[in-house]
Amino acid sequence: MFKFTINARLPNGRGRAGLIETANGIIETPAFIPVATKATIKALTPEQVRDDVGAAAILANTYHLYLQPGIEAIKQSGGLGKFMNWSGPTFTDSGGFQAFSLGFEKGRRVNKIKKVESNGEIIETDNEASPHPLMAKVTDEGVSFRSVVDGSAHFFTPEKSIEIQQAIGADIIFAFDECLSPDEPYERQKKAVERTNRWAKRCRDVRHPESQALFGIVQGGRYEDLRKESARAIGAMNFEGFGIGGSFDKRDIGTAVGWVCDELPENKPRHLLGIGSEPQDLILGIENGVDTFDCVAPARLGRNGTAYRNVTHPGADGRSTLNLLNAVHSADFSPLDPDCACYTCRHYTRAYLSHLFRAKEMLAATLTTIHNLYFVVNLVKEARQAILEGRFGELKEKALAPYISLGL
Amino acid sequence: MFKFTINARLPNGRGRAGLIETANGIIETPAFIPVATKATIKALTPEQVRDDVGAAAILANTYHLYLQPGIEAIKQSGGLGKFMNWSGPTFTDSGGFQAFSLGFEKGRRVNKIKKVESNGEIIETDNEASPHPLMAKVTDEGVSFRSVVDGSAHFFTPEKSIEIQQAIGADIIFAFDECLSPDEPYERQKKAVERTNRWAKRCRDVRHPESQALFGIVQGGRYEDLRKESARAIGAMNFEGFGIGGSFDKRDIGTAVGWVCDELPENKPRHLLGIGSEPQDLILGIENGVDTFDCVAPARLGRNGTAYRNVTHPGADGRSTLNLLNAVHSADFSPLDPDCACYTCRHYTRAYLSHLFRAKEMLAATLTTIHNLYFVVNLVKEARQAILEGRFGELKEKALAPYISLGL
Repeated sequence: MFKFTINARLPNGRGRAGLIETANGIIETPAFIPVATKATIKALTPEQVRDDVGAAAILANTYHLYLQPGIEAIKQSGGLGKFMNWSGPTFTDSGGFQAFSLGFEKGRRVNKIKKVESNGEIIETDNEASPHPLMAKVTDEGVSFRSVVDGSAHFFTPEKSIEIQQAIGADIIFAFDECLSPDEPYERQKKAVERTNRWAKRCRDVRHPESQALFGIVQGGRYEDLRKESARAIGAMNFEGFGIGGSFDKRDIGTAVGWVCDELPENKPRHLLGIGSEPQDLILGIENGVDTFDCVAPARLGRNGTAYRNVTHPGADGRSTLNLLNAVHSADFSPLDPDCACYTCRHYTRAYLSHLFRAKEMLAATLTTIHNLYFVVNLVKEARQAILEGRFGELKEKALAPYISLGL
Repeated sequence: MFKFTINARLPNGRGRAGLIETANGIIETPAFIPVATKATIKALTPEQVRDDVGAAAILANTYHLYLQPGIEAIKQSGGLGKFMNWSGPTFTDSGGFQAFSLGFEKGRRVNKIKKVESNGEIIETDNEASPHPLMAKVTDEGVSFRSVVDGSAHFFTPEKSIEIQQAIGADIIFAFDECLSPDEPYERQKKAVERTNRWAKRCRDVRHPESQALFGIVQGGRYEDLRKESARAIGAMNFEGFGIGGSFDKRDIGTAVGWVCDELPENKPRHLLGIGSEPQDLILGIENGVDTFDCVAPARLGRNGTAYRNVTHPGADGRSTLNLLNAVHSADFSPLDPDCACYTCRHYTRAYLSHLFRAKEMLAATLTTIHNLYFVVNLVKEARQAILEGRFGELKEKALAPYISLGL
């Protein structure tokens, strides 16, 4: 069961407010989807994610779950939601991005040779004779890569990615794509778009459409013609929705995202993959037609002691975040953000949070993660409400003002 | 406001069920009090401690809070409960035990000299010329010790301990005592009992009785005459309740605890300090007259992946705990304990918990801590109910059977 309804549109024709309905519940869009990399939102229980963060859905990483605990444990548990005690809608990504990026890193590490020179210096060189590929190796068939957990060799194909995602059993899954850095040149991007199209077809052909919605992924880097070509090709392939991929930069949100959304079928949802680390990225993404977002940044920043401030009330220093490890917070008995209604801001002071970080207490990560995730989830909810009430322009102006005044 | 009422007694005249009333709420006794060492129950929110663990009160460590974040931050927050968002009753210990034990360790570390021998071997020796004491140094005046946080020098006296505990503002505080290993010989124990009596008087004389209940501490190691002498002396000193100290062994619970409780005024509550790491210790403590317990062991075991099993249904291997890092649990889709009604056992499988521990996810510690703390809190609640209903003997037999059959 999968249905997408649009309730209201922005005057620019791109942005919209709507509803995604799945067998496991409804997602009011636009929505921020927290990332449960290894079948857990780090440092939170599912109830905290639902009640304290206010998230409607979560996204887990196929690559990580495939390596640990492995697909069998999740399948036997009755799928991702049951495994991790999350009763709402779930997404999994295709595993492609991590196979490329992490496989590459691991390949580098296991294939280095350490040599001690006569002067005692240690030199690291590539092991040309290594039986292992130096990095994730991509052919038309698929991607071979090394596990970040134990260095073992693996091979992902579009068919394999769908098979794994079906076993994991999320409501929304993604087609396997070739994901390049946006800095790669035109010819490489063009080839990746073509391969992504071929892989998208293979994914579509092997999936069982009954219980899961499959989203095709648009690539094309920073090239308008490639982005549009990719969106047209993927848009024509009868997917239930679309992912916009490319691990690109915030400056691309106003350009590449808009190009893509203009070409994609209007009546299907669009997910911006792994981008949108700062509040203003979300506002710009929504304006340009994005329905759902995922990003690890808010939670990761939180775990490291960096908390978001209300973008309409940045600190006296003009910053939109604060670092709880700064000494000034140890004697500050105000909440992280006086305008925030989250669990953390209602019950704890900066002084207490600062103490928890200094004492290396786990609750520090829990409380700051709740604040940061609530912050982005709620900002996107506010944007939804503003679209419904015809005042998105006003919200955008307020939300971006501090960044604009800082020249960001 | 402090009141203790006894509702029912065991036939042996020692054990009882009752109520401690404080300005911040009621503790039904006997009760297990989880330890919030640094003003947080590690890995849990206060709501999880209250709702998922079911604890009525928490105990924080004066020594740790004094060093980090320091007393000022807690005082300015309105006291311990407000600082950490715990609205129920609170305890603090006197700081004595940690000043002795941790101060000693730190003293050893900072005063070692490392010398590299000509053969390259590194030798560690005591620095006789060190300006710092080699260990925590105890005189009749108080204890000088070094901070575990930064090695700085500090001096605790009975008066200072009360002053700090008043600033922290818990409902129940403890007199400063000299705490020896139970293995110390008779003469040392006798001197410690005498000093503890003198310090107890000094504590009583400086405290403001309005808002906090002060508990005197009984010492005396494994010597019946010293334990009874200590209990009589402390019992005569007009405290609101008593602590039984000594960091002693489980085999002492049936002996030393009983001796002490026979001598203490019957109408005042007794707290067993930092002992009772295993379920059977709690049952024996309750039988011998203990009203409240604290112990870090259940939570610490949980964080390390060791979960309690129902003592009436130990595993096929006869053990009363299970280690989630054992490979056998990765494919076990049953809960930690099929007889347990805790949040963790209602929602998660051993396979999932095992995955979280392997993946080093913080939620692992949260979920296993909830289970272990619920387990001991609930066992003590069941014992209370059994006392009220005149069937404690039956509960004891069931609870101790597996240990007795294992010869523990």
